[in-house]
Amino acid sequence: MNSTNNDLHKGPMTFDLLKECPETRARRGTIHTRKGAIETPAFMPVGTQGTVKGMMPEQLKEIGSQIILGNTYHLYLRPGHERMARLGGLHKFMNWDRPILTDSGGFQVFSLGDLRKIDEDGVRFQSHLDGSKHILTPELSIAIQEALGSDIMMVFDECIPHPSTREYISASTARSTRWAARCKAARTDESTALFGIVQGGMEEDLRQKSVEGLLEIGFDGYALGGLSVGEPAEVMYQVMDWSLPLLPQNNPRYVMGVGTPENLVEAVSRGADMFDCVMPTRNARNGVLFTSFGKISIKQARFIEDELPIDPECSCYVCRNYSRAYLRHLYQSNEILSSVLNTTHNLYYYLHLMKRMRDAISEGIFKTFREDFYRKRVSTGEA
Amino acid sequence: MNSTNNDLHKGPMTFDLLKECPETRARRGTIHTRKGAIETPAFMPVGTQGTVKGMMPEQLKEIGSQIILGNTYHLYLRPGHERMARLGGLHKFMNWDRPILTDSGGFQVFSLGDLRKIDEDGVRFQSHLDGSKHILTPELSIAIQEALGSDIMMVFDECIPHPSTREYISASTARSTRWAARCKAARTDESTALFGIVQGGMEEDLRQKSVEGLLEIGFDGYALGGLSVGEPAEVMYQVMDWSLPLLPQNNPRYVMGVGTPENLVEAVSRGADMFDCVMPTRNARNGVLFTSFGKISIKQARFIEDELPIDPECSCYVCRNYSRAYLRHLYQSNEILSSVLNTTHNLYYYLHLMKRMRDAISEGIFKTFREDFYRKRVSTGEA
Repeated sequence: MNSTNNDLHKGPMTFDLLKECPETRARRGTIHTRKGAIETPAFMPVGTQGTVKGMMPEQLKEIGSQIILGNTYHLYLRPGHERMARLGGLHKFMNWDRPILTDSGGFQVFSLGDLRKIDEDGVRFQSHLDGSKHILTPELSIAIQEALGSDIMMVFDECIPHPSTREYISASTARSTRWAARCKAARTDESTALFGIVQGGMEEDLRQKSVEGLLEIGFDGYALGGLSVGEPAEVMYQVMDWSLPLLPQNNPRYVMGVGTPENLVEAVSRGADMFDCVMPTRNARNGVLFTSFGKISIKQARFIEDELPIDPECSCYVCRNYSRAYLRHLYQSNEILSSVLNTTHNLYYYLHLMKRMRDAISEGIFKTFREDFYRKRVSTGEA
Repeated sequence: MNSTNNDLHKGPMTFDLLKECPETRARRGTIHTRKGAIETPAFMPVGTQGTVKGMMPEQLKEIGSQIILGNTYHLYLRPGHERMARLGGLHKFMNWDRPILTDSGGFQVFSLGDLRKIDEDGVRFQSHLDGSKHILTPELSIAIQEALGSDIMMVFDECIPHPSTREYISASTARSTRWAARCKAARTDESTALFGIVQGGMEEDLRQKSVEGLLEIGFDGYALGGLSVGEPAEVMYQVMDWSLPLLPQNNPRYVMGVGTPENLVEAVSRGADMFDCVMPTRNARNGVLFTSFGKISIKQARFIEDELPIDPECSCYVCRNYSRAYLRHLYQSNEILSSVLNTTHNLYYYLHLMKRMRDAISEGIFKTFREDFYRKRVSTGEA
């Protein structure tokens, strides 16, 4: 069953662990879903409202996206999950035939601050669009994700704010584990994968306890939640070092909401397989572009007559065809094409970085790759 | 020399008149330029600031754009024509290798109202971007257009407001003719085409006088200016009926700033060959879409669960892949992809309409085409 080709996969998701780095904990694998294969380590562009902002699906495929992320909270509020189901699901709605991972809606709901209230049942909240009142529960989150036609669903959990008291982290994490069990019980179709999410704040024993609780329930994959919430990078890496080795070898491991290119390299070194982050897309719209030598802000006056591409080492469509001068002009002129081209480049950068890591792991040279990655940034002083 | 293939054309622009409609004055031709051929009647998407808003050049080609229009005023102010020349010209800057027609800057400058002042030499104006002071003359307009690397330049003229007094129209038109002669004298490279612009307001004798003045100077093509300035459609058609038959058979005729699909059909019937208008692109960004049965506003609630494409008779990328429900969702969500997809559809509609007219003229059935075009709109009551 665990074929490594791109054919559609019948039945539940599977994961092939293809290669492990002999010097780090980096791993190369393939996830097989009913909508096609995902080579890991993988980056998932974020498609919040049924679109990866500014990108056509064909363009996403061209730059190598094998999976995208959809947001349960946004799609539940607009256009609504029941309407979406009547329209044939999210894949058809947005013209994307490859896998979709959906978040649980928890992260957005908990971000609403005063507009939400939590209890054992779930979270009461008011829509950021029209103030209407809603209750999101583990059961509803799964129902929404199933209605959207998700290929990989996430359990409904609380992304604990940082910093929080140990007492709060402990209580919240225990509740998230109970919610995870309710999510699994609520699933009606086992060919849709469901991932558990490890919480536990920045506390080693609570992370461990969270992992144990999730393993007892049993999921198709496991995620680290509660990272990229304002903690220093060293703390993030520490949490990965505590948590990732506790997770099963033969399930994918997803580090949620992470992060910078450096974060991705470090997380892969520590055994992570999947990532999502708005950083490449959001930064693109703000004129911040990722390159092999670090980030640049295309709005700067120094680019006004610069004929070079964004990154002379990049072979993306944008770098093959446009100068920094043109991209600066588009940004200054507030042109739609500015967001489109910048997003194309940044997503290519992220997806190509993942490909380079996959290749390096396959070839057994990941550690050398990582050294080169940092050396290039340091040598130009722009990291 | 007048080959009808798409090969690049050395030397000055030429125009092949291929076929004339036996029942109307519609004509089918091909313009040959150093950047490739343009089949007429042709529609030119407007690329104001060095980009057709929301479209990559490859997408423009895919939907059949053989030429686009660039705006002298905007590009003069930002990034500046001298900088543009140093960067290799507009084609290279924006990654567009097919012909570009540039306007003279006159239309935008005259639209500035209180910010501009006109005399025999030219127009003094203040930038809408930073208030800086400039003088645009016929000579500078040509210098800018040449610096941009235009393939077809337009003479610097005044687009006369409507309504104006006969006295004003007469004086302005005479001055525009003097400016047209200065433009021709200022041209330094005869392989760049230069078009004269007929003014004369809505006065038959002044239009005639304008034509005579321009013919005396001699241009590679002739345009009708001063239309689509708020006059009723019947008046616009009247001006075309007065002016177009006076223009030489063997030069292209360009009706500037026009118009609706109906306007295009009527202008082609009257012997016009080229058009530009922001209507398809601007309307797209406002959610107004063109169809074979008339315009629709995609923001309307009636489309919320509508699985049909924008126009079931349209075969564009958008109509092949997306529902009205999705396009409404993107518009309501203020997504970039809304502008991109709507623009793609509307430009395809315009470009495909021109292709259908070209085919109908070639096949000698233009009059039947025109009847069908109107019947379809009337029968659905949405025209």
